[in-house]
Amino acid sequence: MNFEQLYADRAQCMKTSAVREFFKLTEQPDVMSFAGGFPSADFFPMEKVTEVLRDLIAEEGKFALQYGPTEGNLELRQYLAEKMTREGSPCTAEHIIITNGSQQGMDLISKVFVNPGDVVIVEEPGYVGGLGAIYNYEADRISIPVDDDGIRVDLLAARLRKLHSEGRTPKFIYLVPNFQNPTGCTMNLARRIKMLALAREYNFLIVEDNPYGEIRFEGQAVQSMRSMDTDGRVIYLGSFSKTFSPGIRVGWMLAEPELIQKVACAKGSTDLCSNSLGQRMAYRFAASGYIELHVSSLISRYKARRDLMLSCMEKNFPADVTWTHPKGGFFIWVTLPDGMTARQLLLKSIERKVAFVDGAGFFVNGKGENTARFSFSEAAPDKIIEGIAILGEIMQAEMVAYKKEKTA
Amino acid sequence: MNFEQLYADRAQCMKTSAVREFFKLTEQPDVMSFAGGFPSADFFPMEKVTEVLRDLIAEEGKFALQYGPTEGNLELRQYLAEKMTREGSPCTAEHIIITNGSQQGMDLISKVFVNPGDVVIVEEPGYVGGLGAIYNYEADRISIPVDDDGIRVDLLAARLRKLHSEGRTPKFIYLVPNFQNPTGCTMNLARRIKMLALAREYNFLIVEDNPYGEIRFEGQAVQSMRSMDTDGRVIYLGSFSKTFSPGIRVGWMLAEPELIQKVACAKGSTDLCSNSLGQRMAYRFAASGYIELHVSSLISRYKARRDLMLSCMEKNFPADVTWTHPKGGFFIWVTLPDGMTARQLLLKSIERKVAFVDGAGFFVNGKGENTARFSFSEAAPDKIIEGIAILGEIMQAEMVAYKKEKTA
Repeated sequence: MNFEQLYADRAQCMKTSAVREFFKLTEQPDVMSFAGGFPSADFFPMEKVTEVLRDLIAEEGKFALQYGPTEGNLELRQYLAEKMTREGSPCTAEHIIITNGSQQGMDLISKVFVNPGDVVIVEEPGYVGGLGAIYNYEADRISIPVDDDGIRVDLLAARLRKLHSEGRTPKFIYLVPNFQNPTGCTMNLARRIKMLALAREYNFLIVEDNPYGEIRFEGQAVQSMRSMDTDGRVIYLGSFSKTFSPGIRVGWMLAEPELIQKVACAKGSTDLCSNSLGQRMAYRFAASGYIELHVSSLISRYKARRDLMLSCMEKNFPADVTWTHPKGGFFIWVTLPDGMTARQLLLKSIERKVAFVDGAGFFVNGKGENTARFSFSEAAPDKIIEGIAILGEIMQAEMVAYKKEKTA
Repeated sequence: MNFEQLYADRAQCMKTSAVREFFKLTEQPDVMSFAGGFPSADFFPMEKVTEVLRDLIAEEGKFALQYGPTEGNLELRQYLAEKMTREGSPCTAEHIIITNGSQQGMDLISKVFVNPGDVVIVEEPGYVGGLGAIYNYEADRISIPVDDDGIRVDLLAARLRKLHSEGRTPKFIYLVPNFQNPTGCTMNLARRIKMLALAREYNFLIVEDNPYGEIRFEGQAVQSMRSMDTDGRVIYLGSFSKTFSPGIRVGWMLAEPELIQKVACAKGSTDLCSNSLGQRMAYRFAASGYIELHVSSLISRYKARRDLMLSCMEKNFPADVTWTHPKGGFFIWVTLPDGMTARQLLLKSIERKVAFVDGAGFFVNGKGENTARFSFSEAAPDKIIEGIAILGEIMQAEMVAYKKEKTA
């Protein structure tokens, strides 16, 4: 059977990402891995989960095992509407749909909005899963560079003008404004305000994906774009994956009710509904108020890992290597001198049982060969100390070879 | 914000199904409903679930709450490969991917194979969720009638010849061969063999969706098309939704490893992975052997409901009304005399707190106005007796009016 001849055109856009492939290498238990962007399983609230599940099955087991509404469990949607309202985005349950993690939110938004060839703006570098969801619907992804203050809205404005002169407008822009995956950087308030103005001027939507925002180690939260949105063009994605558990696959989308209804139609045909058990677990975990205690404990534990990784980098990495200093989230973004390739570094470090993700996969334009993503979320402190020291050694040796070559 | 102007073309194909809309009406607790195709929550194995969850969280809680592989939990895939091998379709874990119910299987198959305008053959009447998944990718759905022995392969052969003469071939055919939703009918062996021959002749794929096959009340199981497939063109979909719990959203797809890999790429961008907790619950429930005991208990309990509903129909429905006699599954298909409309009957019966689904939504060509689906899976015996009696009364009255009009 030759399947190739039967595939849809969009199947050409379904490729295993380099990140995913490398996970398989890095999953061996003896590897010190800074590759995965997973939350630490050591921080899962196991005792609370045991309690929540016991009560849940006893009190509403029949509902937890049955199909639920496509839009999601009503109590959970009401809880999330209240939470989002408290956080500055007034809304009701009708503004909320539950998704299988925010990844499904990105898939459904793309499914509803993207025709083949449509322009979608993405971050450079950007979150691999978001880039993939958009690409699967054959979008023309145009990337705009990110710096320490988030996406470069000045460069975006110029690009939008150019596109406009060619008769093209993006359908939407996809942003992870807080502690971005992969750079760890946060978009500042001025850029968020400018982004909203550009979206209104050129009539595109903003997808504001915020899985890491609650894991803030220092400083004040920056207002969400959704909270400043005056005409309903911001679609906000939230998730329990980093604040509770990714294995239950519970995220949410906040948008205008009219759009939520369209997305619900799309979701109905996609998987009927999200898993009822996970939704009810998330509701009990969150609505009891326990999630706030848990998140504050997560913040101090992830902060300790970030601090440790940053100080180890400071101590071990060569002077020509630079990296970001995220104020929250899971990731540090490392830049090697131009001409050095992170993939080569990775191949050497894997030999010594240390792993990270080389950065090229986060770019849609072939750039980023000299960049890498380091996650501090999953590695235990002793592994961070040992792993970063080994990487420092390898980098120093590479740097000597690199400089020799450059001066030769 | 005007979203309409930004929607993709395919969003025109995302409509709330009549079935889904009517569910809202029929969900009121005082309604005697034969509308939903849900398994009975009264039959969920609550004690076993409590035990499984307790052990699972204690022994592998950290994995159950963490992201898992996109292809699904390996132990569950191995279990399913052994199960499918025992049932006549030799395979390994590489032939299996876990999906969010078999609905997601249909979405992913459509995503991978369907270009706008591609022909996909469906059953007439056919499963609403399958029809919707295919339609969302803008397929040209061509329906072939179903009778008591399944889809009419003779009519299909004629249609394929005609299509071929127009230079068109279907990408795939979507079939629910056992106790079909909505008719309850089962495709006989001769037609399955002929179907495979047609698929080879015209080079299309067969999607064999089998959520109800294990709920067989009488007679011998008919061989699956996948078990007779010699060149890997049958994609088989299975589910725990009817044999265990739909709320955990765990189904599976069995196909050639090359295709499973492509589907895994699509699923990765769609939702990263299915929920880990549900997969591990399904594995423990099934691999312990408990599922076999449970299914045999389900069979006797659902059979009692089918027997009761059939005898109530026999007793109460007018002579001109006919219905199917399913040997398994959840559904009985009722046909009213030509010219009578099931929607009108439904509106009257809802007033008297009895609900079913009128059949038009299961057709892609506007037919079926005089048909209706009755589910016996969820209603308690006293509700079946009372509800069908009320419907009989309404039908008798309608029939008098109908005959008067006809002779007038």
